[in-house]
Amino acid sequence: MASEAEEGGPQRPLTQPSTRTALDVATIGGIIAASGLIMTAIVLGGSPTAFMDAPSVLIVIGGTFGVTTACFSLKDMAGAAKSVARTIMRPHDHPGEAAVQMLQLAQIARHKGALALQNYLAALEDSPMLHQGLLMVIDGTPAEDVERIMRREVQAIAQRTSRSVSILRKAAEISPAMGLIGTLVGLIQMLGNLDDPSTIGPSMAVALLTTFYGALLANVVFTPLASKMERNAAEDMLINHMHVMATASIARQENPRRLEMLLNTILPPSERVDYFG
Amino acid sequence: MASEAEEGGPQRPLTQPSTRTALDVATIGGIIAASGLIMTAIVLGGSPTAFMDAPSVLIVIGGTFGVTTACFSLKDMAGAAKSVARTIMRPHDHPGEAAVQMLQLAQIARHKGALALQNYLAALEDSPMLHQGLLMVIDGTPAEDVERIMRREVQAIAQRTSRSVSILRKAAEISPAMGLIGTLVGLIQMLGNLDDPSTIGPSMAVALLTTFYGALLANVVFTPLASKMERNAAEDMLINHMHVMATASIARQENPRRLEMLLNTILPPSERVDYFG
Amino acid sequence: MASEAEEGGPQRPLTQPSTRTALDVATIGGIIAASGLIMTAIVLGGSPTAFMDAPSVLIVIGGTFGVTTACFSLKDMAGAAKSVARTIMRPHDHPGEAAVQMLQLAQIARHKGALALQNYLAALEDSPMLHQGLLMVIDGTPAEDVERIMRREVQAIAQRTSRSVSILRKAAEISPAMGLIGTLVGLIQMLGNLDDPSTIGPSMAVALLTTFYGALLANVVFTPLASKMERNAAEDMLINHMHVMATASIARQENPRRLEMLLNTILPPSERVDYFG
Amino acid sequence: MASEAEEGGPQRPLTQPSTRTALDVATIGGIIAASGLIMTAIVLGGSPTAFMDAPSVLIVIGGTFGVTTACFSLKDMAGAAKSVARTIMRPHDHPGEAAVQMLQLAQIARHKGALALQNYLAALEDSPMLHQGLLMVIDGTPAEDVERIMRREVQAIAQRTSRSVSILRKAAEISPAMGLIGTLVGLIQMLGNLDDPSTIGPSMAVALLTTFYGALLANVVFTPLASKMERNAAEDMLINHMHVMATASIARQENPRRLEMLLNTILPPSERVDYFG
Amino acid sequence: MASEAEEGGPQRPLTQPSTRTALDVATIGGIIAASGLIMTAIVLGGSPTAFMDAPSVLIVIGGTFGVTTACFSLKDMAGAAKSVARTIMRPHDHPGEAAVQMLQLAQIARHKGALALQNYLAALEDSPMLHQGLLMVIDGTPAEDVERIMRREVQAIAQRTSRSVSILRKAAEISPAMGLIGTLVGLIQMLGNLDDPSTIGPSMAVALLTTFYGALLANVVFTPLASKMERNAAEDMLINHMHVMATASIARQENPRRLEMLLNTILPPSERVDYFG
Repeated sequence: MASEAEEGGPQRPLTQPSTRTALDVATIGGIIAASGLIMTAIVLGGSPTAFMDAPSVLIVIGGTFGVTTACFSLKDMAGAAKSVARTIMRPHDHPGEAAVQMLQLAQIARHKGALALQNYLAALEDSPMLHQGLLMVIDGTPAEDVERIMRREVQAIAQRTSRSVSILRKAAEISPAMGLIGTLVGLIQMLGNLDDPSTIGPSMAVALLTTFYGALLANVVFTPLASKMERNAAEDMLINHMHVMATASIARQENPRRLEMLLNTILPPSERVDYFG
Repeated sequence: MASEAEEGGPQRPLTQPSTRTALDVATIGGIIAASGLIMTAIVLGGSPTAFMDAPSVLIVIGGTFGVTTACFSLKDMAGAAKSVARTIMRPHDHPGEAAVQMLQLAQIARHKGALALQNYLAALEDSPMLHQGLLMVIDGTPAEDVERIMRREVQAIAQRTSRSVSILRKAAEISPAMGLIGTLVGLIQMLGNLDDPSTIGPSMAVALLTTFYGALLANVVFTPLASKMERNAAEDMLINHMHVMATASIARQENPRRLEMLLNTILPPSERVDYFG
Repeated sequence: MASEAEEGGPQRPLTQPSTRTALDVATIGGIIAASGLIMTAIVLGGSPTAFMDAPSVLIVIGGTFGVTTACFSLKDMAGAAKSVARTIMRPHDHPGEAAVQMLQLAQIARHKGALALQNYLAALEDSPMLHQGLLMVIDGTPAEDVERIMRREVQAIAQRTSRSVSILRKAAEISPAMGLIGTLVGLIQMLGNLDDPSTIGPSMAVALLTTFYGALLANVVFTPLASKMERNAAEDMLINHMHVMATASIARQENPRRLEMLLNTILPPSERVDYFG
Repeated sequence: MASEAEEGGPQRPLTQPSTRTALDVATIGGIIAASGLIMTAIVLGGSPTAFMDAPSVLIVIGGTFGVTTACFSLKDMAGAAKSVARTIMRPHDHPGEAAVQMLQLAQIARHKGALALQNYLAALEDSPMLHQGLLMVIDGTPAEDVERIMRREVQAIAQRTSRSVSILRKAAEISPAMGLIGTLVGLIQMLGNLDDPSTIGPSMAVALLTTFYGALLANVVFTPLASKMERNAAEDMLINHMHVMATASIARQENPRRLEMLLNTILPPSERVDYFG
Repeated sequence: MASEAEEGGPQRPLTQPSTRTALDVATIGGIIAASGLIMTAIVLGGSPTAFMDAPSVLIVIGGTFGVTTACFSLKDMAGAAKSVARTIMRPHDHPGEAAVQMLQLAQIARHKGALALQNYLAALEDSPMLHQGLLMVIDGTPAEDVERIMRREVQAIAQRTSRSVSILRKAAEISPAMGLIGTLVGLIQMLGNLDDPSTIGPSMAVALLTTFYGALLANVVFTPLASKMERNAAEDMLINHMHVMATASIARQENPRRLEMLLNTILPPSERVDYFG
């Protein structure tokens, strides 16, 4: 009845979720492709330098940054920057493989006691939630406390992510507005000096640059990052919930087969595991 | 008491929901009609080639594709493409006929045992959910497990569809923005070179092309596809829920008359069945 | 104790809700008034023919129709057309008078038996729900079945109306977009042929026509019809719910006084009835 | 224990909520101030008559009225007009003083019986809900019926107000659309007659007038009235709920001290009363 | 068992939440940075005086103020002004330190009786809610009454804040509308006087100023203030809820260790306290 898997020990290395932190190809590739097409159109048009204007860049990027900071706080902005970095360099989690790893840990804890997990903590650096949770289990923290503390942590992570998403959405709202403001400044300056008609064209071109920058920032940078961050958050939540389930199950010294059943309840069909045969 | 229908066997072929996969006339016809009217206006205007500009097409289509991919993932995009194909080549389900088919299967299972369903599985290729569910029943999977697994599947299908809809809605948001960006690029280039007034008109015409493409893509392609996909999802859900009901009922070896009553509860009035008289 | 009213019989004609199907003055009058003012401004401007342009009409009306059809289905479109007709030629229901009619029917059924209602069915052609429900009662359908079938019907009606409303709202979104697309086509054609300056004005005028048609369709036709349809649906629901209440009460052979109390619970204060004194 | 207040009688006049119906200074003052500033800018600009154009006024005001009527009904429009009048000439209710008045009435009813309230009805003309409710109490209507009837009335009032608010919001949506339509008419007329360049400026000025009227109506008239009406509705609801509470409490012959406690539960902190010390 | 902390007395000063009321650097800094960049662009453009126009400032600021006042009331406006001041000069609360202070007070009340808190009230001036609550406890108000009164107060504060936020959001909607109205006035005046072409440019520049002011006010002033106020409200609510919890716990003479546990339930992980070891 006991499958071979149930006899595994420290000599057998822990399954590691295979894919690792890597550039998110879709995000980076998509943004670069869209920007590249626009750059190409600019270069083909003949005068790419006409699209560079330091004051325009400053008004749009600086203004968007200033107003967005005013909407939130410096700490929130730092958190959003970290979230963006994590969106670009995303650790690809395979829920199925993560589930197998958790089941292995649950089995070890069941067969050799929770203290035996100490030898495996080093291998869990990529899963801080699981690492911290198992540390509490090893320290003998009661199961309900472990679960309550981890749930609160999961909630705090969700709140931090949703704040980062709303910062990017706010920036995507503000940047076209700063672009419009910059264009109005340019238009008013140009209209006040219509004496030399030959300068009208270039002046209007410069005035339109901020609108161009604002539209670019909003649609090619902030919006996709915000959407992607929101989409990834749902996936991360799944793994986090699984970590809470697994740690609580280990702390309660439940049968790992029950954990497998629980994990399968929330795993998408294609990722369901069948570890105990 | 037992109606004649209750004595049907393998010799009597299974009712097949009559209509089959076919081009969705409303979707394809509507999009082609709208595009055709615009084409006609372009051709009547005399210079249709003025509306073709490869770089403009690239900026709008390529940019929209790039940014939308960045918002989601390559896997999501592939899923959306499949959903679009399924929206255009839509299998027309008649909930009423599908219900009759399910009642026939329930009757066969009741009279000859679940194993007798094996002879009918081949006829259910068009209903993968029902096929997979009956396979589990034949394999002796407990009724609750069959129902739980199928419900999870239905939920996963709903999530996949709603993600495809949000990809198309995002594309409908992004394409006019890419059109605006392209027009701004064109305007800035034109304004920087006002020396030869005779080129102003054609340059502006080209600049406006991306706005035209963006408006066309958003309003004539992405928006109707997204709306139609959302509308169809509600219909598909009905059939899926019926399949879950029917499979669970067969697995529980319930009286088919009870299944008929259950199916009629969720069928729209015009599709209600009266199989057992 | 028994008031004189309780002795009414077939010789006494049934109270008919007084107002009948008629043009909805507010809807038709409002749309005609708004259109008339715009027409007047056009005629006063001197050249009304400048506002007629067949290709422009085709692009906006045909394009809006095509795209809206693609968003839904031909069956949905036919349903929306019927809903529009019913919004314009609206049967004005007086919930109070309808309630009195239902109480009379309940009293007849109580005193002479449900079969006696047969003589009155012909007078209920304007209330198909009530007609169909009483037919079931006369046929001896059990009360719970009558109620369940009618509730499902009411729900189906609500869904049909809400789909018609969303079709009109979608058309109100699409028509200005088609207007913009038409104007872009016109502008691009004009900008490509700036040789003869004398044609610029008329060309731009024609280009703007589609925007004008789109704005007109959306704001003077689709939006008011959608709003009115939504508003009427709430009123119709009231009568429908009363019909379900009354039919179920008659099927259950309850005291008509109890029905009066129930109907008064959902009638607005100004329409409450006091039939039994 | 019995405070002096408990011995009050008809000789002691009823506390009247101090402030009375009066022009709402914020609403009227704010709208007049904003309009005045715009008028001043127009007059300073030198040619105020250029801003008067009867056809433009007709298109925008008449068109907005026509379309809004089509969205609702003539009865709804009349209700909205009344609501607007009530928003401008707003009876300023002091919930605290109203509470004291209700407590006095409750005390009178407690000490001298409900019939004694007859002497005070005349003083309650400003509070029709309370007046009507007490009349029912004096007539001996059972407490639950009084409460149920009054609750239905309160609900009906809330629905009427919310319909008036949505009429004004709809008008605020329609008026800029009618302004745009008017401007398009003007532009198309102007573009068709470019022969005399000296008329271009004035023609465009007239064309822009409808856009100006539409923006003015929406932002300076309809939007503030709708917002104010919505804001006032919340305050009125408080008083209405207190009237229901008080009448029901009197009908149930409860101790006025209990009523005081109940009223204080829903009064804002600054308005809480301490009538019985 | 009793830790040293439990023996603290009046000789030991109360922990004061360390940070105090100070300019909110992110809000003020962000707004100033964004405005500064725009100012720099204006000054670099050469003619900063072209951006000053008293009538334009009046129309936009005065008009926005007038319309917003009309939407609400003078009292609401004063409340919003106070909220803005409090957003800019924000008391930085450290929930963790505030929790420690509350636990100290709970310990003092437990060891020396609620009356001993009197010596500490003076130190609580920065926390009016806590101050008022403890005053009620010292006065012997029953625990449930203290809690009910404080909860109502917390709710009233939340309503006041949300009204202030909606005033700023309304102002952010109205100011661009007033900018548009001002620009339309300017354009209409200019178009009526095209005689001297040399004045067209400057006239249009002045006309555009109101649009510029409106965009600036909405995006650089009202929107960030509203967003920040909303964000801060969530933080303030946390402290307020903790004050209610602590005061109710002291009034109920509960063990401070239980209060610590309760406070930790709502504190974010990083702020959780461990006062009793």
